[in-house]
Amino acid sequence: MRDLMSIAWAAKAAKADVARLGTDDKNRGLEAIACALEAHTAEILAANAADIEAGRANGLNEGLIDRLTLTEARIADIAEGCRQVAALPDPIGELLWQKTRPNGLKIGLKRVPMGVIGIIYEARPNVTVDAASLCFKAGSACILRGGKEAFHSSMCLTQLMRQALQQQGLPENAINLVEDTSRDSANEMMRLNGFLDVLIPRGGAGLIQAVVKNATVPVIETGTGNCHVYVDASADLNMAAKILVNAKCQRISVCNAAESLLVHQDIAAQFLPMAAKALAPDHVKLHGCPRTRQILGDTILPADESDYAREYLDYEISVKVVDNLDEAIAHINKYNTGHSECIVTESYASSQKFLEEIDAAAVYVNASTRFTDGFVFGFGAEIGISTQKLHARGPMGLEALTSQKYIIYGNGQVR
Amino acid sequence: MRDLMSIAWAAKAAKADVARLGTDDKNRGLEAIACALEAHTAEILAANAADIEAGRANGLNEGLIDRLTLTEARIADIAEGCRQVAALPDPIGELLWQKTRPNGLKIGLKRVPMGVIGIIYEARPNVTVDAASLCFKAGSACILRGGKEAFHSSMCLTQLMRQALQQQGLPENAINLVEDTSRDSANEMMRLNGFLDVLIPRGGAGLIQAVVKNATVPVIETGTGNCHVYVDASADLNMAAKILVNAKCQRISVCNAAESLLVHQDIAAQFLPMAAKALAPDHVKLHGCPRTRQILGDTILPADESDYAREYLDYEISVKVVDNLDEAIAHINKYNTGHSECIVTESYASSQKFLEEIDAAAVYVNASTRFTDGFVFGFGAEIGISTQKLHARGPMGLEALTSQKYIIYGNGQVR
Repeated sequence: MRDLMSIAWAAKAAKADVARLGTDDKNRGLEAIACALEAHTAEILAANAADIEAGRANGLNEGLIDRLTLTEARIADIAEGCRQVAALPDPIGELLWQKTRPNGLKIGLKRVPMGVIGIIYEARPNVTVDAASLCFKAGSACILRGGKEAFHSSMCLTQLMRQALQQQGLPENAINLVEDTSRDSANEMMRLNGFLDVLIPRGGAGLIQAVVKNATVPVIETGTGNCHVYVDASADLNMAAKILVNAKCQRISVCNAAESLLVHQDIAAQFLPMAAKALAPDHVKLHGCPRTRQILGDTILPADESDYAREYLDYEISVKVVDNLDEAIAHINKYNTGHSECIVTESYASSQKFLEEIDAAAVYVNASTRFTDGFVFGFGAEIGISTQKLHARGPMGLEALTSQKYIIYGNGQVR
Repeated sequence: MRDLMSIAWAAKAAKADVARLGTDDKNRGLEAIACALEAHTAEILAANAADIEAGRANGLNEGLIDRLTLTEARIADIAEGCRQVAALPDPIGELLWQKTRPNGLKIGLKRVPMGVIGIIYEARPNVTVDAASLCFKAGSACILRGGKEAFHSSMCLTQLMRQALQQQGLPENAINLVEDTSRDSANEMMRLNGFLDVLIPRGGAGLIQAVVKNATVPVIETGTGNCHVYVDASADLNMAAKILVNAKCQRISVCNAAESLLVHQDIAAQFLPMAAKALAPDHVKLHGCPRTRQILGDTILPADESDYAREYLDYEISVKVVDNLDEAIAHINKYNTGHSECIVTESYASSQKFLEEIDAAAVYVNASTRFTDGFVFGFGAEIGISTQKLHARGPMGLEALTSQKYIIYGNGQVR
């Protein structure tokens, strides 16, 4: 077993080699990885079967078992994902600007690799390959730490990826999996200053908060989404109902799903019954404010403060009637997690005010919050959705995995 | 006294008001601040005198007393700095790109304020105004925590700035100074998650490391610079000597000053005596490797590992003869702090390789490392020099104090 420090040193030593690779070399590596995964499908399935068996023995619920499970088709999808990353434009080397200063210095800003990227994630073997291929294309080495329930699968995938790179004469230490799955190793990883240039947690709120609290290396906070749909006085109510159902129900377990509905008082009596009817086929449980319950009846659960702050990730939603747009904006800016927020309105003034004043990564007028996604935004891939304001905000594609440096051409200038 | 949490709540409540201000309002506020500082010079000098007296009583050394001292001229400079910030282009509101996606969604990326910016710095009262005016122009509220030795000066300056804003009908809680100067309050500030969108430490290595280690809010690491000058085999040796003297001696206490000289073995016998002679007028103490001492004699101090890693910030420099460019690059990438690095060379290949492979914020060919500075780079101002790779790298101007958000225009799209 490689311990964490030997992995950290290996990744650090490899980063210059990875950074130097040209686009063709990186794409050749990604294609080799895709082929290796396809060629060794049986081996991967065997490793995955061991994880599933252990998971069942340890009483993992079916949702987690499903996330853990690989099939021939899923492995083919993962391999296809590598080829899609290969097809993306290489973000490295672009000169963002260059200017000549009064003293003759030519100062340019260039996009360069991050160096070593750490990713901590849950028991989803597909993330092992997704994250590794994105980091590799972005010219960085990576240190991955997946959930221990998926360890055999992730280890098998990692070994295949490293072998594939090695066989192509490419640096195998570009891709590293933490082999010690104890909590100590996770905490140690969060404090690898001098080795990790950034650490990205991918997973549930608990994991992300643990990383934010304990890490001393730079972190990008991702993920949790307490997203709102606000239906303005002037909204097209049929459109509002469609957007609400899509945002709440199309996929309940994701961070860009809606968790709260705000309704302007002027249309509440008309819209709330429409909303309740539209959500009924999915048996969505409503947690309403007093005015909501006045309109929809006491069979609706009452909402308290904690409901407004909750990311249900389930067929549940909090509902509040607001006096006006200002109250809606204040409520959202108080309770949201900086992810995705939507207004449904036909008012120009309301749309502009909402876009301006809501503090979130993605602010929508008349469209579902479910669109916050790297593929939808046209990045071709996604490593996660940042909910912090530093470095990257919203869906992160390849560019979010890069850094910059100034290059300065002189001819003897001194100060 | 306002305690830290009431300050945090006040700043959080003010951030939307600051974000909403137009460029003219912000510039009006900055001009009012400049006038207030000029009009109350006597009051500021009195507060400053109290700090200096206490500093002398507590045995502060003369360097620190000098940094702490305000004069009429220095206050005029600080006021002038506010006007310069007012004259800078407003970074907020720029639409960086907008594109229409296949489903008709118009997705745009807009530059927006950071929100609440925290700055921790040492006993330099001028930073209180510099930092506040930059954050204000960038549309963010700030929470400042200066060294306790400058507390009376900083408090006086802060009150004047807040008054000036208030008199203009602008949000005074845009600018806040932490009034509790205990270490506890510093640690509490580093953990203001949910209040601080970023925390920037400005000061010596000890302060910066304390923030990096203890903060749970996003941090931008700034400052320490173990900068190298590498003299290649093909260098113009007279140019190299000039650059070396400038990088080492023009101002020894700053992070972009050179701390280490690397010399290619082919020109070491010729260049090292030139270098020693050029550094002699400033009585620079050399710490040399064995080959350096063979050439310059045993009166040169020997260099050990710790010398190569040291930021002297004094008239001292480590010197090492290297076999070739590869050894120089490996040495720099091992010991540097990611700040500023210089090669002196007439070789096209060497210059390109150095620019490509050195991992630092600013990489120079034939120019002094001393140029790494927001003003020199044309940003018009500087909040510090980032030595991390996340968010901002190198000198940080107004743009580095901003974030982004996606704004999405739809007409009923669902997924």
